[in-house]
Amino acid sequence: MTLEEARANLTALQQKLTAYKHAIGLIYYDGVTSAPKGTAGNRGQTLSVLTQELYLLTTGADTVSLLEFLDSQREDLTTRERRTVTLMLRDIREMQSIPMEEYVAYQKLLVEADDVWHTAKETNDFALFEPLLTEIFATLRRFAGYCAPDKDPYDYWLNQFEEGATRESCDQFFATLRAHIVPLLKQVQAKPQVDDSCLHGHFPVEQQDQLSRLLMDTMGIDRNHCGLATTEHPFTTTLGSLYDVRITTHYYEDNFASSMYSVIHEGGHALYELGIDPELAYTVLDDGVSMGIHESQSRFYENILGRSRAFTSYLFPKLQEIFPEQLAGCTAEDFYRAVNMAQPSLIRTEADELTYCLHIMVRYELEKAVFDGTLAVHDLPAAWNRLYKEYLGIDVPDDTHGVLQDSHWSGGSVGYFPSYALGSAYGAQYLRKMQETVDVDGCLRRGDFGPINAWNREHIWQYGSTYTPAEIFQKATGEAFDPTVYTVYLEEKYTDLYDL
Amino acid sequence: MTLEEARANLTALQQKLTAYKHAIGLIYYDGVTSAPKGTAGNRGQTLSVLTQELYLLTTGADTVSLLEFLDSQREDLTTRERRTVTLMLRDIREMQSIPMEEYVAYQKLLVEADDVWHTAKETNDFALFEPLLTEIFATLRRFAGYCAPDKDPYDYWLNQFEEGATRESCDQFFATLRAHIVPLLKQVQAKPQVDDSCLHGHFPVEQQDQLSRLLMDTMGIDRNHCGLATTEHPFTTTLGSLYDVRITTHYYEDNFASSMYSVIHEGGHALYELGIDPELAYTVLDDGVSMGIHESQSRFYENILGRSRAFTSYLFPKLQEIFPEQLAGCTAEDFYRAVNMAQPSLIRTEADELTYCLHIMVRYELEKAVFDGTLAVHDLPAAWNRLYKEYLGIDVPDDTHGVLQDSHWSGGSVGYFPSYALGSAYGAQYLRKMQETVDVDGCLRRGDFGPINAWNREHIWQYGSTYTPAEIFQKATGEAFDPTVYTVYLEEKYTDLYDL
Repeated sequence: MTLEEARANLTALQQKLTAYKHAIGLIYYDGVTSAPKGTAGNRGQTLSVLTQELYLLTTGADTVSLLEFLDSQREDLTTRERRTVTLMLRDIREMQSIPMEEYVAYQKLLVEADDVWHTAKETNDFALFEPLLTEIFATLRRFAGYCAPDKDPYDYWLNQFEEGATRESCDQFFATLRAHIVPLLKQVQAKPQVDDSCLHGHFPVEQQDQLSRLLMDTMGIDRNHCGLATTEHPFTTTLGSLYDVRITTHYYEDNFASSMYSVIHEGGHALYELGIDPELAYTVLDDGVSMGIHESQSRFYENILGRSRAFTSYLFPKLQEIFPEQLAGCTAEDFYRAVNMAQPSLIRTEADELTYCLHIMVRYELEKAVFDGTLAVHDLPAAWNRLYKEYLGIDVPDDTHGVLQDSHWSGGSVGYFPSYALGSAYGAQYLRKMQETVDVDGCLRRGDFGPINAWNREHIWQYGSTYTPAEIFQKATGEAFDPTVYTVYLEEKYTDLYDL
Repeated sequence: MTLEEARANLTALQQKLTAYKHAIGLIYYDGVTSAPKGTAGNRGQTLSVLTQELYLLTTGADTVSLLEFLDSQREDLTTRERRTVTLMLRDIREMQSIPMEEYVAYQKLLVEADDVWHTAKETNDFALFEPLLTEIFATLRRFAGYCAPDKDPYDYWLNQFEEGATRESCDQFFATLRAHIVPLLKQVQAKPQVDDSCLHGHFPVEQQDQLSRLLMDTMGIDRNHCGLATTEHPFTTTLGSLYDVRITTHYYEDNFASSMYSVIHEGGHALYELGIDPELAYTVLDDGVSMGIHESQSRFYENILGRSRAFTSYLFPKLQEIFPEQLAGCTAEDFYRAVNMAQPSLIRTEADELTYCLHIMVRYELEKAVFDGTLAVHDLPAAWNRLYKEYLGIDVPDDTHGVLQDSHWSGGSVGYFPSYALGSAYGAQYLRKMQETVDVDGCLRRGDFGPINAWNREHIWQYGSTYTPAEIFQKATGEAFDPTVYTVYLEEKYTDLYDL
């Protein structure tokens, strides 16, 4: 095999992998957006076949010898090719470590678990979900052992979502956050609460849908390449390679801000995916590099931009056009304060910017404990409730509003949650750097996302997975990650808001 | 290989084939229901990979030797197994005759053609679509030559949609229809036209959506296993094996009957698919046997049941609950007459029961002529307009309402149209037979589809593709197909309606 032949084979292989991932991704997407309720069986069956084919394709002898050949020619490869070979060989070695039947059985388990989790959440029945969740944790621990026998199994999963993250780095990171956020929240709680009545009322789905489209257009999201659907738990997915992104939201007719900030959050993910260099299409680099960097975009748009005084002052008159009666008595400043009301609450996705990371810490501590074996899945609800009391000071009334609220565990995404907090913190450093060359507040007051998107495209989006998260962060900000930039941002914002 | 091993391999193979068809079907479904407009590229890329894999799986050496082994053991096989082997070997031999690159290129062509057809229809621009349609007809003619070199190429495609149908049998069938329908329509046109004003007004999508769900429930369609979406051109598809059916409709706010009868029509397809014997799941027999038999169900529910005086009298009070103001001044009899108004018109899918088959004849004559080489694709619009004048007596104002109206040709479904007319005619014979044991009118007056569905399930649905269309028809009715039963049905219905 010559290097040119190997390159051609690598291109063809990546196109094939993309096709399987497109099909698998679409089957999941269909399952949570349009599929009738009783149809999980067919999806499970089909996913087990397709994941098996994907497994065989990824670990087949032809693939392995191709990648090993390319690896032996590293010095003649481009930066992108080297990174491609590194990532693909890592995936191959991990997949080879997991027996195929276990891998396929796990994909089937996830389909069933998603179905059962929905029912369990609806009916507040953790016991129904418990055996599946037990099986998921056991499988993940086993898989970590296969793939990285020398590594702590939870470290293995943290690293899957944020390359480089460990229990140790996360413990430190969360300790810093906690040291600043807990006293800040106490100060806030000692002050009179803001009035958020402008967010409440009746907001018909049709008008909320109109708002979603307005937000997507305002953010500069190309709706020819980004769809919007509704689902239980909002998320973003890319189908195929670049240029087919789907975001989802969930409308509550008594609170338009919930969907509004879901759309902005998912819109941040979508912009990232849509901003990747087209030359990376149909390669393994054509995707956001990690969940931490991905969340750094979604939460940057949602909070740092979307909940800023500058942006809300731009948006408010447009909101009044969409909801003229409901918002008749409010001002832009009322709205700004309402969407930034800090208050311990039950639901992570509805949490304000200040308390959000406390929700993450609960999940992080529980995941660690289950992986350690110091907490049984059976005891998760009690432990969840205890930590919500300890970190947020509130009582959890039932598991629907507690341990069953998120879809992550039923989807096998254990180790994912810390990336929300990491991403939130990364964003504060981007902002500081971006402000050196972009009049961020001025842009937001005009509703002009162009220069902001251009900065993100240049420094983050375009690279896809070409560099590691730490490399991208360093290139974008010119410095190492420092969570105190985020805590300072929070302190300044809430000091102003609550007149501390 | 023992017979038992071969049976196990056959099961596994069929499960794999089902998974690929599920993925491919879902990608099409997504493309016409939810996908953003600019995303056809990724779907084309993914479909070309998956169809190539499906091709390799279907024609691979392992598959061929398995099927040939089973074929050599026919006398030891069950009826179902024999039929399975026959159908699979037929598919294999056909696929083997088509060079893989041509097969894959054709799948890609169809994705592009669907996209271009949409634009061409929207902008009344046949010239835009012409090169793609030319390529589709040329490919189909070439494929017919590969698969059945001794057969007339158009006969080959007729047979693909209705096993056993030929140009000769269709010519005869259509001659019979024409001999009765044309004079009947003349008689109708000599009479005063019915007043269909009750169908017109403003009918918001939300209420029409409520009606769709009411209709599905009334028809006995299990909504846990049958989804409803909106699309340009309504259709039905099954994803995976049994128990995940999707129907689609198109809402026009100025005419609720359009979507109403789309839902009943597609609901007929859905009932058929949902009524197949569960033991056929994940086999090649788990699907309706032919488009003729499929349309015999959809058009039976749409017209013979759905446009009957008995059913409309049941439904009308419920329609008045959904559209109280719009239907305030009408009676059930007004509604019955309105939905049966016979009148030459431009759009096939909106055509009444009497003129519908004339729309089919236009398409049948044109397809024959293009296959014969006596008509160039370039001249299709002019020929279309000429035949609409000749058969229906009307002038076609533009190609959007003419030759570009249907999605079939852009989807490669040439030879499909006659099955709508065949299916319509089959239904009249089912009705006559069903009435021997079921009080059809009584059921419809009560809105009770149970006994009607039970008859169809017992005589048609359960078999899936276990028997040929002609065998199923013969088993259900106890007689051979006779189109005059249908023309008598039409003559009686319209004599009563128009007091001829």
